[in-house]
Amino acid sequence: MPHSVQLLGISNAIVDILAHVDEDFLNAVGAVPGSMTLVDMDRAREIYAQMGPATEMSGGSVANTIAGFANLGGSSAYIGRVKADQLGGIFNHDMRSLGVDVRLDAASDGAPTARSLILITEDGQRTMQTYLGACTELSVADITPQTMGTPRAVLIEGYVWDLPEGPDLTARAIEIAKRNGTAVALSLSDSFCVERHQDSFEHAIRNGVDIVVADEDEVAALVGTDSYDDTLEALEGYDNLFAMTRSAQGSVIVHGDERIVQPATPVNEVVDTTGAGDAYTAGFLYGWVNDMPLSECAKIGTFCGTTVVQQLGARIEPGLLDSYS
Amino acid sequence: MPHSVQLLGISNAIVDILAHVDEDFLNAVGAVPGSMTLVDMDRAREIYAQMGPATEMSGGSVANTIAGFANLGGSSAYIGRVKADQLGGIFNHDMRSLGVDVRLDAASDGAPTARSLILITEDGQRTMQTYLGACTELSVADITPQTMGTPRAVLIEGYVWDLPEGPDLTARAIEIAKRNGTAVALSLSDSFCVERHQDSFEHAIRNGVDIVVADEDEVAALVGTDSYDDTLEALEGYDNLFAMTRSAQGSVIVHGDERIVQPATPVNEVVDTTGAGDAYTAGFLYGWVNDMPLSECAKIGTFCGTTVVQQLGARIEPGLLDSYS
Repeated sequence: MPHSVQLLGISNAIVDILAHVDEDFLNAVGAVPGSMTLVDMDRAREIYAQMGPATEMSGGSVANTIAGFANLGGSSAYIGRVKADQLGGIFNHDMRSLGVDVRLDAASDGAPTARSLILITEDGQRTMQTYLGACTELSVADITPQTMGTPRAVLIEGYVWDLPEGPDLTARAIEIAKRNGTAVALSLSDSFCVERHQDSFEHAIRNGVDIVVADEDEVAALVGTDSYDDTLEALEGYDNLFAMTRSAQGSVIVHGDERIVQPATPVNEVVDTTGAGDAYTAGFLYGWVNDMPLSECAKIGTFCGTTVVQQLGARIEPGLLDSYS
Repeated sequence: MPHSVQLLGISNAIVDILAHVDEDFLNAVGAVPGSMTLVDMDRAREIYAQMGPATEMSGGSVANTIAGFANLGGSSAYIGRVKADQLGGIFNHDMRSLGVDVRLDAASDGAPTARSLILITEDGQRTMQTYLGACTELSVADITPQTMGTPRAVLIEGYVWDLPEGPDLTARAIEIAKRNGTAVALSLSDSFCVERHQDSFEHAIRNGVDIVVADEDEVAALVGTDSYDDTLEALEGYDNLFAMTRSAQGSVIVHGDERIVQPATPVNEVVDTTGAGDAYTAGFLYGWVNDMPLSECAKIGTFCGTTVVQQLGARIEPGLLDSYS
């Protein structure tokens, strides 16, 4: 079957609200530095009221990857739920303006569009307080042969398992993908997310997932190890392709007996780590859907991730590959 | 009468939607480079649909000045109309988070919060397409001794004269200010705005306005001259204090016989000229309300304007004066 697009993303559709804060602010609102916490609307309002002036831009982990993938020149589509409010309009506008085929209409009622309050400290680290809103209404009925089409690969976000119908809708997505010869990639999202859904992720990885994109902590949480060497050894028990990022230690690609170690690129100034992993994934999958060798996929991923940590904002800008050599 | 705050702003409350575009984009949408055009909602939607991914942040010329003034450490208040929608929430949040006393509640119905589509070309120039929305509902009834209080100075935006009740509400604001010993500052906004309201501005400047803040083109449009020397000569016929910016030529302060010439500071890279004049005004008025000599007011204004052209975004960040010497 011919592939309709190269990459389809299924994920939480979120608008980021970014502000610089100091460490004291994190303490005052009881936020764990570097974590992503799900909050309800009241709590989101309470934290927002204490934040300084902010900048708003479209976000969401896998949504960032899809936007970045589009800006690298890949063809892509997206399934995620926003409401037809102003933030939802911003999210869908930004996706469509990149040529991403947005498959779901904004909901006319229900919870407002999701937003993530992203608190950036001086070290460039991000601490996120996320209100999922309209995302929680993503349902099994949204995942159909029509909305999915026949992409070369589908990238599913681990956070989707947090949604009420998440386990069922992801199972449905994997089933449709398998039927159409679509490769299934899973982003593990964050290590707490892995802890929440360890059994489900393990099951999916053993039954349908082809590619796992994750950082070292997330993989460790998945396989229950606490050292890099143990993690690598544990991965010998998997047939999947793992693209594992390791921050300043670079990344490693594991596929069966194959191990490709990709060093990190030195960075002058870390402005904002938001989206570094998402950008790596965009670059890695861009190489993969274009049938490049895994070592090249890892190199492009590293190039994209390195660029994004040096800017404020999570998404890859257009034309980035022009400066890739 | 003691002054409640140092500076009150009365202006259009606008959220900026910023995107980088190339010159061709301006031609394609028929926009005059560097201009501000008022558009209706349909036209705003049409242009937005053609724009790439954008960043949203609170804007508005005098609103930027008030926010910057607050970040310099001044006490301030604000009168402007937003709707109680998501963009309105963003605007009021950002003002309040700086300690600005927002005097009007968001409207529960009526037109949506204003937004300005800001198209930034590679030369750092901005071209704005502004939908005024809720701003057009600012009324005479909003200007009362209670909402105005007794500030040391009130800064009124020229663009307010574009609103249906603009001429009446500004007359009322000037009347209340005069009664309370509040100095009246007028921002001329842009030279097209001056052409639209030349008689009204002239009348206000002769009857109540103490300080005029403007760039050279705006002053020239006001006094009907076409050279710098002619403009300076024409200003001899005014008693007002003029703070006139001249881009790379710096600025000049004119007050009666007094002329203070303030050179510009060389800039390494112009990122975005949005808000340079607004930031100058914030710095100038910060000096003025703190009874600094006019030469010092001009220096602080220049420092603020120079900083803002080197960043993406119109508003002065907190703590800027820490690096002023």
